[in-house]
Amino acid sequence: MMNGSLTVGSMLERAERFFPKKEVVSRTLSGIHRLTYKEIGSRTRRLASALEKLGVGRGDRVGTFAWNHHRHLEVYFAAPGMGAVLHTINIRLSAEHIAYIINHAEDKVLLVDEDLLPLIERVRDQIPTVEAFIVMTDRDELPETTLEPVYSYEKLLAEGEPQFEFVKDLDENEPAGMCYTSATTGNPKGVVYSHRGIVLHSFAFGLADTAALSEYDVCMPVVPMFHANAWGLPFTATWFGSTQVLPGPQFTPKLLAELIETEKVTLTAGVPTIWLAMLNELESGSYDTSSLRAVICGGSAAPRGMIKSFETKFGIPFLHAYGMTETAPLATISRLKSYQRDLDVEDMLDIRSKQGILAPGLEMRVIGANGEVAWDGVEMGELLLRGPWIADEYYKDERSSEAFKDGWLYTGDVATVDEEGTIKLVDRTKDLIKSGGEWISSVDLENALMSHESVFEASVIAVPHSEWQERPVACVVLAPAYQDKVSKEDLMEFLKPQFAKWWLPDDIIFMEEIPKTSVGKFLKRALRDQLKDHLVSS
Amino acid sequence: MMNGSLTVGSMLERAERFFPKKEVVSRTLSGIHRLTYKEIGSRTRRLASALEKLGVGRGDRVGTFAWNHHRHLEVYFAAPGMGAVLHTINIRLSAEHIAYIINHAEDKVLLVDEDLLPLIERVRDQIPTVEAFIVMTDRDELPETTLEPVYSYEKLLAEGEPQFEFVKDLDENEPAGMCYTSATTGNPKGVVYSHRGIVLHSFAFGLADTAALSEYDVCMPVVPMFHANAWGLPFTATWFGSTQVLPGPQFTPKLLAELIETEKVTLTAGVPTIWLAMLNELESGSYDTSSLRAVICGGSAAPRGMIKSFETKFGIPFLHAYGMTETAPLATISRLKSYQRDLDVEDMLDIRSKQGILAPGLEMRVIGANGEVAWDGVEMGELLLRGPWIADEYYKDERSSEAFKDGWLYTGDVATVDEEGTIKLVDRTKDLIKSGGEWISSVDLENALMSHESVFEASVIAVPHSEWQERPVACVVLAPAYQDKVSKEDLMEFLKPQFAKWWLPDDIIFMEEIPKTSVGKFLKRALRDQLKDHLVSS
Repeated sequence: MMNGSLTVGSMLERAERFFPKKEVVSRTLSGIHRLTYKEIGSRTRRLASALEKLGVGRGDRVGTFAWNHHRHLEVYFAAPGMGAVLHTINIRLSAEHIAYIINHAEDKVLLVDEDLLPLIERVRDQIPTVEAFIVMTDRDELPETTLEPVYSYEKLLAEGEPQFEFVKDLDENEPAGMCYTSATTGNPKGVVYSHRGIVLHSFAFGLADTAALSEYDVCMPVVPMFHANAWGLPFTATWFGSTQVLPGPQFTPKLLAELIETEKVTLTAGVPTIWLAMLNELESGSYDTSSLRAVICGGSAAPRGMIKSFETKFGIPFLHAYGMTETAPLATISRLKSYQRDLDVEDMLDIRSKQGILAPGLEMRVIGANGEVAWDGVEMGELLLRGPWIADEYYKDERSSEAFKDGWLYTGDVATVDEEGTIKLVDRTKDLIKSGGEWISSVDLENALMSHESVFEASVIAVPHSEWQERPVACVVLAPAYQDKVSKEDLMEFLKPQFAKWWLPDDIIFMEEIPKTSVGKFLKRALRDQLKDHLVSS
Repeated sequence: MMNGSLTVGSMLERAERFFPKKEVVSRTLSGIHRLTYKEIGSRTRRLASALEKLGVGRGDRVGTFAWNHHRHLEVYFAAPGMGAVLHTINIRLSAEHIAYIINHAEDKVLLVDEDLLPLIERVRDQIPTVEAFIVMTDRDELPETTLEPVYSYEKLLAEGEPQFEFVKDLDENEPAGMCYTSATTGNPKGVVYSHRGIVLHSFAFGLADTAALSEYDVCMPVVPMFHANAWGLPFTATWFGSTQVLPGPQFTPKLLAELIETEKVTLTAGVPTIWLAMLNELESGSYDTSSLRAVICGGSAAPRGMIKSFETKFGIPFLHAYGMTETAPLATISRLKSYQRDLDVEDMLDIRSKQGILAPGLEMRVIGANGEVAWDGVEMGELLLRGPWIADEYYKDERSSEAFKDGWLYTGDVATVDEEGTIKLVDRTKDLIKSGGEWISSVDLENALMSHESVFEASVIAVPHSEWQERPVACVVLAPAYQDKVSKEDLMEFLKPQFAKWWLPDDIIFMEEIPKTSVGKFLKRALRDQLKDHLVSS
């Protein structure tokens, strides 16, 4: 067979040739813009030629510091298309970490959104590898900035070459992109995506049995393009000619709901905290969300109660998935098997609340205290993954050896596997509560709490205990309507019938807000620090 | 990213792990058998271990001479799984060609269906590379045969190792399978399929925008497993855990219709001649075909009239596709784009009668007399293809240089491309009618004729002409009900409004049957020989 390479550039070329009329709907600071793939294609080529003139060559890192919009999409294809490496930088990181990863990746050029300039100006003195800053703005004039040398994105494009040819002699294993993932402690860790990995991941995402992404879809990634390639959606949606809706800077649940209604979004994707907030919005507003065929939820476990609310209250089909920055990210997706369609509604919901089965192309193992766990839905073990879109190391990082062993990625996620091969995440290895030699899943307790109508958010952590080593303590945020109307005892009574007695939290603490990471996950480390003496002193 | 290989063995492993209860429904001489993927998996491993004991090693060719059934499916995975090469032999070839390809491929072992033994016995003396014959039969005792050494498939399995491990150190570019394709003249030409090519082809076949093959499907390949891997369906369906219905030896349209009804087949695939015969059967019988979501038709162009009949008379959705042995075979598939859904029914049918747009992962060019043709739906050119599941040579064959040039496969198919990138095959390069310096598509004339209610089959060929070099002549088989009731003039009147005058055939000849190739395509070479003096003498 022919041994041509699988490349990211060829994905855009397909959209240019076969779907030139289809649109990318992009929200920026100045409003909604509509660009066809034909326009996106020639703009991307102009950008690539401009980057080349600025000295960007094969393998050089091109950093982006931006929201989800069409210019960011153009960089997604321009950098890999010219043989450079797209490096998406998480705008929510601390200044210290932003400087660290720009230096660690040795970004040569940085493309920055106008409203995010101050965050880069703060670290300008610490990032000597950056030779040029390009400001992504709708305005004709560049905004005031201390950055230099600084260029206008649109001006560069105007001078660029719309017929610029993508490099043809790429090896598919060459790097196309990279993204840093937060570590529990210390600096973020870099994950490098190859052309091959991105193309194979896109194949997997278009399968009828996974997300079935299609030309018919209107795809809105709410998950940021600065985080794990927005789950690969910008690549996949472009390849298949889907309409894309990019929601831009500082969006609100209201704005997202309006975009779903006006643009007739069919598929959207984001983390559970986004969908919890969206649920509130849908309950208070009045939106037509009938175009939605799938809300993909990943990043952390989606509470069963939330899935049920979306489906029963609003008829919005939920698709629970699992992955991580290291897995490009699709690893598992939760769909009913054909012979599970006849189960009763609650049983089906039980299955669909799990993380699902492995995407074709990947391999998994779940390793407990005694080797590979039984597929009984009970025994817990750490999930290991292997496959062509799974990272094999952290970029130039000694911590690689902690997560990558014997050809497997050790995910740090604790899972059970049922007899159908469906995995259910029960915890992070570091969040498991080890009580008197037994394991308690913090996630199971959280999901139970969040299925109570009064609970908006819940996070359960291990707190040191003199007798049992660790005991669970729950931190709960009540929904506005239930403030001061629900007690600790009410919630404990609610949990009792659902768990063995020794699983029940030793305490439930009401909070106004649960601290979160830069990508919206509960920051349990902060809670653990805060509550480390809670059971000792009580 | 991890650089593990894409392998055929891992596809079966996925079915064993995640879909052990799903079934393969297999028809053999003794009737219907039902085997789960768990059973298929352990039987496949037993077979691989037995082949190893017989001396089959890495890279050795394992020949099959068999219908579509579960044992054939087991060889599909056992040979590549152990690092050997599955060589499927077309049972409809002449004895001379059968002997040629067994020798050319140097098959070490041959697995033969009981009822096909005589065809191999005839050539036994001419195939010295074959060291063992394995008879695939349901009976306990081996049938009488002159072949030797000869083994019983089931006896070998009984002694085999159900835990046999597939080879782990395969390079994905190693050969997994091979198939010979008929040449216009001379011996058949061998195409080698790599592990990588088969896996990527399966990804492409599962996409929502192509065939969307899914675990929910009940998949019945009517296209033979001895021809282009039954279009890859046995691999793809196994990987995704689809139910498979394998219709076995000497099936009839009636039998296929019954299987569709009783097994609730959702997707089936075959050449137009099969579906023409099926249409007759559906019209005369009474079958529930409501389970069908797609009838995939390829191999040669499906007449528009046939597509319309399936859809309007029986509500069976038709999916027109294009490929060849050299393309594994999926190259294009015809689906409406999202914005074409609002066209009127006839316009939609026009689009869906074309061969469709290119599968993601492939590249194409269409080269006419003046280079790449305009995408105007009019200009004709030869279709060139490139991509990871396209062959790059014929196996040990000097004719490779005719079809493989500059990294492209020259398909020998003449196509137009419309402004949407949809290709329409208008002819084979060798079947085009070159009349007075202009090109006439034999296929367009055939499709028009076959859309007449009286016409069962039509084949239009170029016949030498003293003035115009070549002129079209049509050979027509009337449907039984119309014998002697339709005249040449009737059909000519029917064609007139549809074509320019100079396109109309110089003659229409009624025949009882049109000669066909071993895979059911019209054998135009035979017609051309027969009619070469037709216009000279008339």
